[in-house]
Amino acid sequence: GPPAAKRVRMEEERSYGDRAQDKSTHPLAAQLLKLMEEKRTNLCVSADLTGCEELLQLADSLGPQICLLKTHVDILQDFNPDFAKSLEDLALKHNFLIFEDRKFADIGNIVKQQYEGGLHHISSWSHIVNAHAMPGPGVVKGLSEVGRPLNRGCLLIANMSSQGSLATEDYTQAVVKMAEDHSDFVFGFISGRKVSDKPGFLHMTPGVKMQSRVSGDHLGQQYSDPHDVIFNKRSDIIIVGRGILEASDRVKAAAEYRKAGWDAYVKKLVPSNS
Amino acid sequence: GPPAAKRVRMEEERSYGDRAQDKSTHPLAAQLLKLMEEKRTNLCVSADLTGCEELLQLADSLGPQICLLKTHVDILQDFNPDFAKSLEDLALKHNFLIFEDRKFADIGNIVKQQYEGGLHHISSWSHIVNAHAMPGPGVVKGLSEVGRPLNRGCLLIANMSSQGSLATEDYTQAVVKMAEDHSDFVFGFISGRKVSDKPGFLHMTPGVKMQSRVSGDHLGQQYSDPHDVIFNKRSDIIIVGRGILEASDRVKAAAEYRKAGWDAYVKKLVPSNS
Repeated sequence: GPPAAKRVRMEEERSYGDRAQDKSTHPLAAQLLKLMEEKRTNLCVSADLTGCEELLQLADSLGPQICLLKTHVDILQDFNPDFAKSLEDLALKHNFLIFEDRKFADIGNIVKQQYEGGLHHISSWSHIVNAHAMPGPGVVKGLSEVGRPLNRGCLLIANMSSQGSLATEDYTQAVVKMAEDHSDFVFGFISGRKVSDKPGFLHMTPGVKMQSRVSGDHLGQQYSDPHDVIFNKRSDIIIVGRGILEASDRVKAAAEYRKAGWDAYVKKLVPSNS
Repeated sequence: GPPAAKRVRMEEERSYGDRAQDKSTHPLAAQLLKLMEEKRTNLCVSADLTGCEELLQLADSLGPQICLLKTHVDILQDFNPDFAKSLEDLALKHNFLIFEDRKFADIGNIVKQQYEGGLHHISSWSHIVNAHAMPGPGVVKGLSEVGRPLNRGCLLIANMSSQGSLATEDYTQAVVKMAEDHSDFVFGFISGRKVSDKPGFLHMTPGVKMQSRVSGDHLGQQYSDPHDVIFNKRSDIIIVGRGILEASDRVKAAAEYRKAGWDAYVKKLVPSNS
């Protein structure tokens, strides 16, 4: 609504490139902010596919348009080490980062093994992972013991887009505090809106779809559109899954989301235009 | 302390076998309560191992003493479908249930794929899984679509044993409500204490170790002992990991935990003895 938009216009909005150079910014966040500025994209595609070959084809075709590729490797029927290597090659070829959306949520001693080991060896190929703060700081400490030596980074889940989520405002504030206390490894949030003004913290918002009012699913997912997320809610990155994957032309759909997300960002930078 | 113990003695405590026959009890919970009564055990071993062969040997050697075997298959370096089949065979041989401690924590549309698909096909071999309630009821609905047709059951995480956990009392109460609303699939809780008096709901408590005051780990895990968990906190099942896995004689250690857990249960049933 108008009051929120008014608040946004009163605050200074710094560019991705400017924030990349802030000395407090985590090196991986700086790399991400820089490539977003260079590629002119704040689009993360959520590659929720069940076959490796289709996922690699998607990464290759959408690679030029995205800053991040988000995966759920535990739904891939044929995951194998060669797949991970091919995905890393595509990330280099197209200059995007890989984000395994594992939502770690156990005690530190377990999550470090889930991150490093098993069949998926997530820490060996995924630049970014995320975690629920629910277990307390041990979840971040455990992941950090594995990820920091590899120059990886982590996002904390500040709130969720699904209906009836139990994340309260107090919970979100405790998550922000935990992120600030571990900023050598945590560099941002999964969140429906900006929750921290520190320039090095990135905000990524899932559940993004054009024409949000007509959509949702029968399992409680709720959608917002790119302009609302980037301009009104002041998030940094839109995460789009079914809006692209279910389109008849995925490349064309990705281009539309990329433009919508970028236009909202540019509008946010120039308050007088809004 | 004494006031808590006094409260416990004032309430009626029903036996596992009696609760198994309550008409409101979920069929899987009834099966579990019945085998606990028959085998005289409320011990769940947390088999946090990284090799399939060692895990199968553990399941075979501890099988006679346990009601549940808890797994983290995503830390197994060599998971394969034959392993899952062998584990199911051992569960039948020794009459215990399998509980994959996956802590699902995403939106419904994703968790159903993580539960059913990927390399692990968890729903095909694990009788029980668990989930964080944080995403809202969609997480249970998504899992339920996969698990109910297979007669599986689910536990919700009511609170956690790790230091600084963000689960508040309000959060725990919302989790209990969610469990009650989905009692055709959810039949209990991961919890440090009893949080619901419904006889069909089972409470399982991790972080259990003898001589709890001297232990903990550097990643925030905190321990309680079997008597405190079963008698004072009125939980139903003790989940023991490192207390057994790190013992020089695992079978002997398991026997000690089994006896401690069962003695505390028997003492709870007969208030005048306490």
